[in-house]
Amino acid sequence: MTLIVALDRSSSKNERDVIGVISKICNMVSGVKLGIPLFVKYGATIAREAREVCRNNMIIADLKLADIGDIMISTAEILLPHVDAFIAHSFIGREGALDDLKGYLDSRGLKLILVASMSHKGSVEVYDKEIDNIADVIKGINPWGIVAPATRPEVIGRLRESLGKEIKILSPGVGVQGVKPGVALCNGADFEIVGRYITNSSNPVETTKLIIYEQKRRLDRCRK
Amino acid sequence: MTLIVALDRSSSKNERDVIGVISKICNMVSGVKLGIPLFVKYGATIAREAREVCRNNMIIADLKLADIGDIMISTAEILLPHVDAFIAHSFIGREGALDDLKGYLDSRGLKLILVASMSHKGSVEVYDKEIDNIADVIKGINPWGIVAPATRPEVIGRLRESLGKEIKILSPGVGVQGVKPGVALCNGADFEIVGRYITNSSNPVETTKLIIYEQKRRLDRCRK
Repeated sequence: MTLIVALDRSSSKNERDVIGVISKICNMVSGVKLGIPLFVKYGATIAREAREVCRNNMIIADLKLADIGDIMISTAEILLPHVDAFIAHSFIGREGALDDLKGYLDSRGLKLILVASMSHKGSVEVYDKEIDNIADVIKGINPWGIVAPATRPEVIGRLRESLGKEIKILSPGVGVQGVKPGVALCNGADFEIVGRYITNSSNPVETTKLIIYEQKRRLDRCRK
Repeated sequence: MTLIVALDRSSSKNERDVIGVISKICNMVSGVKLGIPLFVKYGATIAREAREVCRNNMIIADLKLADIGDIMISTAEILLPHVDAFIAHSFIGREGALDDLKGYLDSRGLKLILVASMSHKGSVEVYDKEIDNIADVIKGINPWGIVAPATRPEVIGRLRESLGKEIKILSPGVGVQGVKPGVALCNGADFEIVGRYITNSSNPVETTKLIIYEQKRRLDRCRK
C-alpha cells in the first residue's frame, strides 16, 4: 500500500468525528499521520484513540519536531505507547538534536522520518538552498524515511538519487495542494500523503478508493 | 523585567505541579514559555491553566512551529484565548508559511517570535549557514521578537546589528546549558530564558531571585 492519510487540521469537528473518519478507512491505507493541531487540541489522547481504531496501521506523529535533543525526546516519550513514527526537521542538524532523537527512537524500535523539503512556495527561500547539507544530515542520521513534496518532483528525484533506495520517501501535497494521485510515486516516492481531499470528502471511503485506483492507473502507465 | 521562565519538559510531574511552580514566580518574571512536551501531554489545557495563574504575564507557546501556513494557523486558533505569543522557525520561509501566520496573528493582536538560530551544537550544520537569508526572512516578516542562543554571543551581536533595535531578542541557553545570567543581556539580548535551573530547583522562588540579582549585577558592570 502506498497511501497515508493525514489528519492535520482540528476543524470544528470533535475528537470522535476525527477518529470516526479514519476508523472507516484504516484498512485501506498504510498509515495515519496526525498533525500538530490535533495534539495541541487533544493532547496525547488523540494518538491513543487513533491506535485503538487502527491497530495495524503505522501511526505517525507529525509534530515537525525542530527542537534540541532532550526536548524532542521528552515529547516522544509521552507518545511512546501509541505511535510508530515521528516526523522531525532535518535543518536542525545532528549534534545535540537529531543524533539524540535517533538514538532514543532506535532504542525503542520506533521510526524516524525527516523532512527534507516542504510543499509550500517559501521552501525555496531558505530550506531548499541547503538541500546538499540536508542530504548529508539525512545520510548521517539514516532515518527510516524522509518527507519530500509532491509539488516539487525535481527535489524528490534529487534526494532519491543522493540517498539511494533504502530510505522511504513520503510525499505530501497530493490532492487539495494540486498534485494528482500517483504523480509523486512515478517520481520516486514510496508513499503519498493525502489529507483534506479525504477528510473533507462527503464520502471518505469512496474518495480513498478513487485515490488508490488513480495511483495504480498512473503507476501502471509510468512504469511501462 | 528581563527574565522568561521556560516550562519545557513534561518530567514525571503532573499538570498541577507544573502550574504550581509558575504560580509562585509569575510576579517576578516577564513571561512564561510553554514547551511542546506540555502541549503534547495535556493539550490546550496547559495554556489555559497557565493563563489563569499568571494573568499579567506574557504566555508564550513554544511549539517551534515549522509547517505550512494553514496548519500553523489552525494550531494558533486553538490556543488563541490563552496565549500572547507564538514561536515559529524562520527556516521555513515566508511565502505560504510565515507570511500567512504573521497576518493571522497580527489580526488577532498576538505576537510572533521567530527562531533565528538554536542553542545546540548542530545549529551550525545547516541553520547558521543561512544566517543572512534568515535575517532577510526576519526583516520581511518583522516579528515582535526573535530567539537567538545565549550560547553563541556572536550570533546575537550579528542579528542585533542586522535587525536594528526594535525587534526583541530572547535568549535561551542560560543556566543548565552553561551560560551565566546577564551574559546574553550584555551581548544585546532583551530577555533571557531560563528553564530547568528554576523548575528543577528545590526553591524556585529563591533561585529566580538569585538569577534576577545576577542579571542586574552583570548588566551594571557591562554597561559601565
